[in-house]
Amino acid sequence: MVYVDSKCKFYMNLITKLRNIQRKNNSLLCIGLDTDVSKIPASLKHHSNPQLEFNRRIIEATTDLVCAYKLNLAFYESAGEKYYETIQKTLGYIPGKIITIADGKRGDIGNTAEHYAKIIFDDWKFDAATVNPYMGKDSIEPFIKSEDRCAFILALTSNPGSKDFQYLNVEGKPLYEHVVESAKKWNAKNNIGLVVGATHPAELKKIRSLVPEMPLLIPGIGAQQGEMEETVRSGCDRNGELALINISRGIIYASQADDFNKRAREAALKYKEQINNFRG
Amino acid sequence: MVYVDSKCKFYMNLITKLRNIQRKNNSLLCIGLDTDVSKIPASLKHHSNPQLEFNRRIIEATTDLVCAYKLNLAFYESAGEKYYETIQKTLGYIPGKIITIADGKRGDIGNTAEHYAKIIFDDWKFDAATVNPYMGKDSIEPFIKSEDRCAFILALTSNPGSKDFQYLNVEGKPLYEHVVESAKKWNAKNNIGLVVGATHPAELKKIRSLVPEMPLLIPGIGAQQGEMEETVRSGCDRNGELALINISRGIIYASQADDFNKRAREAALKYKEQINNFRG
Repeated sequence: MVYVDSKCKFYMNLITKLRNIQRKNNSLLCIGLDTDVSKIPASLKHHSNPQLEFNRRIIEATTDLVCAYKLNLAFYESAGEKYYETIQKTLGYIPGKIITIADGKRGDIGNTAEHYAKIIFDDWKFDAATVNPYMGKDSIEPFIKSEDRCAFILALTSNPGSKDFQYLNVEGKPLYEHVVESAKKWNAKNNIGLVVGATHPAELKKIRSLVPEMPLLIPGIGAQQGEMEETVRSGCDRNGELALINISRGIIYASQADDFNKRAREAALKYKEQINNFRG
Repeated sequence: MVYVDSKCKFYMNLITKLRNIQRKNNSLLCIGLDTDVSKIPASLKHHSNPQLEFNRRIIEATTDLVCAYKLNLAFYESAGEKYYETIQKTLGYIPGKIITIADGKRGDIGNTAEHYAKIIFDDWKFDAATVNPYMGKDSIEPFIKSEDRCAFILALTSNPGSKDFQYLNVEGKPLYEHVVESAKKWNAKNNIGLVVGATHPAELKKIRSLVPEMPLLIPGIGAQQGEMEETVRSGCDRNGELALINISRGIIYASQADDFNKRAREAALKYKEQINNFRG
């Protein structure tokens, strides 16, 4: 994808933007802002929008340690009336050089998908969105139709239910590999990435071999118990880049006391360094 | 599923509620409230919330002609700040005996899916939600975990992209049939239905034979060109019930003039009668 830097109006491909920030911050870490209103420290409860203030402080404490922030839309939708505003203002706190991902796993017929893509890219101005492949190409097209949009397509997810359909044997190959092949085929604008869970390191390695130059968004480290070393070694490209290692709960809830932002920074720094140890 | 009638606190299974309203209104018609702010008649533009006022008038004009209303969440999300309120108040206009469906095609890991389900069922109080099967059982569990929740799982969708993955041959059967079989297996609380597009009438017939007593939500008639007679004959159970034939654009945009609600009523009546002609 390309993007417009809010200051200099300079267009840049997603992969270039990703490599730039991964080098500048020397980090593959993506912090997942799965901000649960029930887990926000008591000291923020008096704030007019505790979820937003929580995000502001987490972002302020970590911008030099990450390549991306991923906002899990469910946590903002479930908070109710301030959904739109909280996301809009949270994005305002994130420096333009850092990748922003709307994690909503959308997927619907073209006419509807246009609406999901419109708010994510035109209104909120995310760099990228996660999408579900089940409904096929026309459900993904609005997310990749122009070079200033980008989609991370679910390939092999990190949860236990990934075993229900994603591994089904389709003509000698698991379903998720068919998804990977379709994603390659649809990638004419070079603005597609894949979601691959850290809980499947061998499969991650295979997928990386199939798409040597595609960004891979990798959740499942931390609360979901994925193993760091194998994930980093398998998920990076040959330059030790293009993997986005997402950690959510392990960072943003490192502490629920008033020092949550400091503890989040410490956790982010620890994860960033752990990741870098294995980048080779 | 069961539900609590807001007046009498009487619990009822989804299938019972669906049969009751289909008999009372003599209708299998589900109106899809895909309310696009750019298509709302000019005369409503002065209203403080044109999307909500549009829905109010459409609902007021059609409650005796339908078994269900389906709200396509994308159209409300893309309208911005009033997302939460517009959905909440729209539901307030729908009589308690009519089925309400949140069409968001959600699917995410359990912890996140809980948040999507929470706002749909606990806050907005929909009867049912559409969900995407790709991430497997734990992504659907929050939508079916109690008898006052209900999920319509995407099986075979109405769009062109349904051919990309849903027909892939898995051990002699298309992928969507594996989804249907899993849905049957997961239906311990009798609160699962399926989404099957009207654009695949032969497959619809096969699916109905596999799940003779499951509600089928059937989009694709109207703007998407599905054929009515085969859809109704194939989609109903043996009593000519349990199919919800969804029509959106063909009804709500029957006119964009001030008489849009009257024209919507006429269109709804026409579709209801067309459907009833083929119920056998």
